[in-house]
Amino acid sequence: MLSAYTELEDRFRRTALLGESIGMLSWDQSVMMPEGGATARGEQIAALSVIRHSMMTDPALGELLSDAAEQGGLDEWQAANLMEMRRNWVHATAVPSDLVEAMSKASSACETVWRTARRDADFNAIVPTFSEVLRLVRHLGEVKSAAFGCSLYDALLDAFEPNGKSADIDPVFESYAAFLPDFLDDVLARQNRGPEPVLPPGPFPVSEQRQLVRHMAEAVGLDFETARLDESLHPFSGGIPEDSRITTRYDESDFTFALMGVLHESGHAMYERARPVAWRRQPVGDARGMTIHESQSLLVEMQVCRSREFLGWAAPIMRDAFQGEGDAWDAENIYRLATHVSRGFIRVDADEVTYPAHVILRYRLEKAMLSGDLAVVDLPGAWNDGMRDLLGVTPPNDRLGCLQDIHWYDGAWGYFPTYTLGAMAAAQIYDAARKASADIPAGISQGNFRPLMAWLGKHIHGKGSLLSTDALIQSATDRPFDDVAFKTHLRARYLDA
Amino acid sequence: MLSAYTELEDRFRRTALLGESIGMLSWDQSVMMPEGGATARGEQIAALSVIRHSMMTDPALGELLSDAAEQGGLDEWQAANLMEMRRNWVHATAVPSDLVEAMSKASSACETVWRTARRDADFNAIVPTFSEVLRLVRHLGEVKSAAFGCSLYDALLDAFEPNGKSADIDPVFESYAAFLPDFLDDVLARQNRGPEPVLPPGPFPVSEQRQLVRHMAEAVGLDFETARLDESLHPFSGGIPEDSRITTRYDESDFTFALMGVLHESGHAMYERARPVAWRRQPVGDARGMTIHESQSLLVEMQVCRSREFLGWAAPIMRDAFQGEGDAWDAENIYRLATHVSRGFIRVDADEVTYPAHVILRYRLEKAMLSGDLAVVDLPGAWNDGMRDLLGVTPPNDRLGCLQDIHWYDGAWGYFPTYTLGAMAAAQIYDAARKASADIPAGISQGNFRPLMAWLGKHIHGKGSLLSTDALIQSATDRPFDDVAFKTHLRARYLDA
Repeated sequence: MLSAYTELEDRFRRTALLGESIGMLSWDQSVMMPEGGATARGEQIAALSVIRHSMMTDPALGELLSDAAEQGGLDEWQAANLMEMRRNWVHATAVPSDLVEAMSKASSACETVWRTARRDADFNAIVPTFSEVLRLVRHLGEVKSAAFGCSLYDALLDAFEPNGKSADIDPVFESYAAFLPDFLDDVLARQNRGPEPVLPPGPFPVSEQRQLVRHMAEAVGLDFETARLDESLHPFSGGIPEDSRITTRYDESDFTFALMGVLHESGHAMYERARPVAWRRQPVGDARGMTIHESQSLLVEMQVCRSREFLGWAAPIMRDAFQGEGDAWDAENIYRLATHVSRGFIRVDADEVTYPAHVILRYRLEKAMLSGDLAVVDLPGAWNDGMRDLLGVTPPNDRLGCLQDIHWYDGAWGYFPTYTLGAMAAAQIYDAARKASADIPAGISQGNFRPLMAWLGKHIHGKGSLLSTDALIQSATDRPFDDVAFKTHLRARYLDA
Repeated sequence: MLSAYTELEDRFRRTALLGESIGMLSWDQSVMMPEGGATARGEQIAALSVIRHSMMTDPALGELLSDAAEQGGLDEWQAANLMEMRRNWVHATAVPSDLVEAMSKASSACETVWRTARRDADFNAIVPTFSEVLRLVRHLGEVKSAAFGCSLYDALLDAFEPNGKSADIDPVFESYAAFLPDFLDDVLARQNRGPEPVLPPGPFPVSEQRQLVRHMAEAVGLDFETARLDESLHPFSGGIPEDSRITTRYDESDFTFALMGVLHESGHAMYERARPVAWRRQPVGDARGMTIHESQSLLVEMQVCRSREFLGWAAPIMRDAFQGEGDAWDAENIYRLATHVSRGFIRVDADEVTYPAHVILRYRLEKAMLSGDLAVVDLPGAWNDGMRDLLGVTPPNDRLGCLQDIHWYDGAWGYFPTYTLGAMAAAQIYDAARKASADIPAGISQGNFRPLMAWLGKHIHGKGSLLSTDALIQSATDRPFDDVAFKTHLRARYLDA
């Protein structure tokens, strides 16, 4: 007879295979599917999702989890796996199915309204559907809060950042909010004293961009026997370890958009690819959470690929890719382009200095809306006040303000903080990596990522969900997770300090 | 409370959504997936297939089928749907799961050996694994034969041609086998008296072929808001009505391969696309079987697109696509190319006159192997004898002989006859269509398929599985299904008789 634990591994393996299949159908939907397939694809994915949900909420699964805990005899890895199984199970079973369905319908309705409301910069148009989403998200948070025994916000956060706590996030974010105004003034003053960065003259044909970004993705460590690179409206990283699917979008007037995007997605993909094969399709073999995931994309894109070391190697390759000529292709100009800082309205266009301000604003506002301190109708005003306080700019309309991101309208609450936690973790992890081996920075200056990826594989990628986010960063960097390395990095890069 | 029948519709709808998902994963596997994904994809598809099988073999489903039959009160469409539900259920439940698994493993092992055995023309190498496949197929046929109450061969045939009977096929095939030798002599003699067809000078760049075949697929009726056209090693037609996925392969030295292939697959796709929306995901809304499916691809490719009428319109478009010049682009020469007849060894390269001989040979041999009249080790000799009798040629080796097709080695027995039954049905259906409306041939001579597709939509495509294959052909053509129209077509096209 199988032990309860062994049967759990088998069940979670089957659930993971369903998840991989859903991921594949979603990839095709974003990358390949003609418009006409949209409705049917939605129904296919919904059918697989219902099956997956019923596997996760099968009462027998709850019994197996209890039995496995009682039977004991598990090694450390199995115990960690059991803990992650239980966390996944709580997420699935905490929420009554009528709430899941109501949430899915409300998000879908709100997302549809959002597309036109954003286009028309018309916040009033979205107030009714958005209020319903908020009501349901609050309800979702309440039931998960009871199941996990934590605050409502932390219960929502847990879906993106397992065991994340707003009590840990608050001081880090407040510290950055206090640090930013003066620092940003200094950075902009110094930037203004230097030469203006110049975008090399285009156009940059898609076919040549495609060659260039493939070459760069290969440098990071992807190989196209086990990966694809395609186009989609919103770039993302999907697939499985043996078949990574990353996407980008090409702008013929600016090749850096696709280039930096592909480097970012390659960082995500490398994290997924380096998990031990024997851990595949077990919860402990999953990515640790969005903070670590984002740390790996930002480590590659922000820490490594916008550095002088990397660009010294890469700039001539960029120039040759487009048969470019002139000073604009000098590595120093490309570096100025890649590290240009500005006060802007749009999060996804932000540089690494101002990006945290966009995130801190959303974090504060989503907590206030969830607690009831901020009414939906007051969001635009609170948004604009926050932008003024944090970045010194006021969005001229809600399209450039509180309607810019899909997340809230689509039901994703508790997601935003992981972007900035990831940026901070990236700085701390890359700092430790460079100190661990001189081969790492030396490799980067020659476009050789192998020493870096070997170190990340050992200290981050290969650990899956064995440790908590904090313990993983502590074990990799030999110190607790904080924002010290991030601020040090920013001072060094932007103030030469 | 739902009636048993209503619950059945719901269950079959969910099963169909799983089938569509499996189809999508298979499409990606053939068209997009990098090599590295093969193992994982196999596991994903297997996981979904196990779920689908368990839905089909759920004891509650058997009870619902009985209850629905007892409760009665169904209209004609619902009664036909219930009948198809039961047929699908018998296929799923007749076979014990250990036999399903053994079959799957043996086929997979045999297919692997077949790839090298074919390459090396080494039949002996495949005898052990092939014998095991045959043993299991026979076992499968026995259990299905008991479940359906029909002969072993007919029980296997039923998976491809529902309710097909070898007693009906035998006289048709024997008649063609008797007809062919003299007819082929006459055709070749007449062909030799005329001018030799000339392939227009290439090369034919893939990008220009792609434009041409897209244009032709659009002429047939595909539109690329609801379809894709891609490349794969083995061309096929997949997807769903609102999102057809057809594939082809380009040969830069001969554009007619991709062109005729795409026209063929477009015929398959048009059949899938024109089923009534309200019938979607119900068994009675499925394709009637492989005979009708193949009739629709062959009607487009063989009956229509290799005709003088069509090629008179299409030849100048082909010439312009490649900026060609000279007599080789004349419609009459293109017609001679498209209707060239020869005695060959390879089924997939055969013209429509000799193709049935390849099929009749396989049909005779698979029946003999299943009945035990032909031992596996005697297959190569029997094959070569058959080729000599039917076509007057002897394969120089088994690569060009009994190892050429994957079907038997992969476990598909009872499939081959549907190719030729489809060719015969295509002739009978197209003959009726042309007689029904002068707009149909007039449209074809201008590249306008709309009148033809409207007629097919009404008389064939829109009927799904409401009628049996024979009844469907009878209702569309006002006469029983036979080979008269096919022979008349061949005499007219190849002997001007």
